[in-house]
Amino acid sequence: MTKKLGNIENEDFTEKIQAELIKRGSRALEEARKAVLDEEIECKKAMEALNYFMTTYWQDLARPTLLSMCCEAVGGDPDKVIPFAIPLILISGALDIHDDIIDQTKVKNDLLTVYGKYGYRIALLTADALLFKGFHLLQTACVQIPKRKAKIIMDAVTTMFYQVGDAETLELALRKKKKISPDEYIHIIKKKAADVEAHTFIGAVVGGGKQEEQKSLREYGRCLGMLFIIIDDIADMFNPHEISHRLKKEHPPLPVVYSLSKDYKKTDTYIKKIKSIRGQLSLKALKDFLDIVYQTGAFFETQRIIEDIAFNARMSIDNIRMLNNQLQMLLEALLYEAKKFYNYLHHAKVL
Amino acid sequence: MTKKLGNIENEDFTEKIQAELIKRGSRALEEARKAVLDEEIECKKAMEALNYFMTTYWQDLARPTLLSMCCEAVGGDPDKVIPFAIPLILISGALDIHDDIIDQTKVKNDLLTVYGKYGYRIALLTADALLFKGFHLLQTACVQIPKRKAKIIMDAVTTMFYQVGDAETLELALRKKKKISPDEYIHIIKKKAADVEAHTFIGAVVGGGKQEEQKSLREYGRCLGMLFIIIDDIADMFNPHEISHRLKKEHPPLPVVYSLSKDYKKTDTYIKKIKSIRGQLSLKALKDFLDIVYQTGAFFETQRIIEDIAFNARMSIDNIRMLNNQLQMLLEALLYEAKKFYNYLHHAKVL
Repeated sequence: MTKKLGNIENEDFTEKIQAELIKRGSRALEEARKAVLDEEIECKKAMEALNYFMTTYWQDLARPTLLSMCCEAVGGDPDKVIPFAIPLILISGALDIHDDIIDQTKVKNDLLTVYGKYGYRIALLTADALLFKGFHLLQTACVQIPKRKAKIIMDAVTTMFYQVGDAETLELALRKKKKISPDEYIHIIKKKAADVEAHTFIGAVVGGGKQEEQKSLREYGRCLGMLFIIIDDIADMFNPHEISHRLKKEHPPLPVVYSLSKDYKKTDTYIKKIKSIRGQLSLKALKDFLDIVYQTGAFFETQRIIEDIAFNARMSIDNIRMLNNQLQMLLEALLYEAKKFYNYLHHAKVL
Repeated sequence: MTKKLGNIENEDFTEKIQAELIKRGSRALEEARKAVLDEEIECKKAMEALNYFMTTYWQDLARPTLLSMCCEAVGGDPDKVIPFAIPLILISGALDIHDDIIDQTKVKNDLLTVYGKYGYRIALLTADALLFKGFHLLQTACVQIPKRKAKIIMDAVTTMFYQVGDAETLELALRKKKKISPDEYIHIIKKKAADVEAHTFIGAVVGGGKQEEQKSLREYGRCLGMLFIIIDDIADMFNPHEISHRLKKEHPPLPVVYSLSKDYKKTDTYIKKIKSIRGQLSLKALKDFLDIVYQTGAFFETQRIIEDIAFNARMSIDNIRMLNNQLQMLLEALLYEAKKFYNYLHHAKVL
């Protein structure tokens, strides 16, 4: 999430969003870091891995920012979300490490993952440390607020995980499938978006939003989460390392799923070719693959679904009392990211 | 823990302890099972793995029994620990799955582990489901008690994990070491015993024990936990499958650590021989290995440390107002388990 938001260029709102991420996210991130690294750990390797993850790798400004914006959007004091933002940064970080172990992802956003740097054993124990610390701090935060609210938040965190976890196991099954229906994959994307939804919803709850505001921000979060995932899928299409990894170790990104459903034979033949390549995929091979996917109309289908979701996202925040220009800006910044990739395609920089 | 307590034979207290385990542990275990399996999960494979773990594999009667006994020992109503026993069963189960992934343990106590049956990906997601559910239920239980007590319990759970996690990363480093000092390994065993200590301590807290009673039961738990681990290590020495796995994928059990420190060359030569054997270790080879370890005096050293710990355990519960005959019985049942292995050795059934 962070990286994506951090990459936006040449638009008025870019600087604004980046400033918001730093303003709203930094304190929680810094406190999360301190909370983890203050703990006494004898094993140097484990301490080193935790330190690496918390200071170099996990620059998660997006989640605390979302909490803060949604809290303020319903009239709450954004500082009130910090005690919740800290544990959620840690819990999300732990799940990110688990994802990397599951997908055998050694490098992400040009950085070695904890799994890539320290192996799965240390990675698993690092994630455990983050989870235990995270749940402890979440409990501490919950004790400070009315029981009813605390229950809503804990329920949201658990439901969120069950949906994300469920989506991940459903994703595992996709790997072995020859034909993935786009609807099936979009259903999984929707479940995975429970992560972002939980953050926008908890922000609204902590901020004291009305029932309908909570519902709207929940819907907004779900849409935003889906867009994050779909645009990540598009980004993977333009990165030789990522697309190889996706096709070899995971399941194809959304444009490829559409492409397979439209011209299975042509798409699958090229996928097999990519899978057979050892080492780095050449730019030529990547361009040829993008060409095939483009010809099937898969990118248009992907664009169509992005527009549908963006429409729902805009609708959902129409009734939020204040600051919805920031939530709007966040959405548009994300959509601009997608647009950049489409510009590549349409202006034949790639094709 | 459970298996060990379940295996005691031919002693008066055996039946009593087994009855206690069922009486005190079953309800929490049943409710933990229900809580996990009631959750809506779409992925059939994940549901199947959760179901397998909770109904066939994780017969964790020992932890709820310890909670219950320690609560009652300080004059509390043992039913009060059930809301804490349920999440602790789930969290401990998740950590057990993580251990199996780390040690690549496919079979334990003659049962396939979740890792062995479903692979590391599904195992990891199963453990996550248990952790999230566990922490949710722990939070729910904490809301029902005074804030001060809730904080003590959450602190204990987190400290427990940090110690166990730390011990596990220290253990990973042992694998690559040629010479492990017995003191170093016993230090790790002590850290790992934080698991059992947390349970006896939380039982005392929920039961409303006085400060000194809490401290005593904490000490008792630490000793009991160490004994569980050491006796497990002894048991591994008598099981061809386990000893092979320990020497090939993990680090040597305590008697072998002593043996290495007493006669490195002789012990190490035989370890290398065992490591080179593919497939099942023959009973002859196992007997030869036990013989070498026995000759170095390593089993006597192990016995000496067991007696020291048992002495501390007995001392620690001397001042507990009631029911310490049950805690005593639990301790003696465990020591009897060790005695059985020593009888094997001394009566030349093995040697």
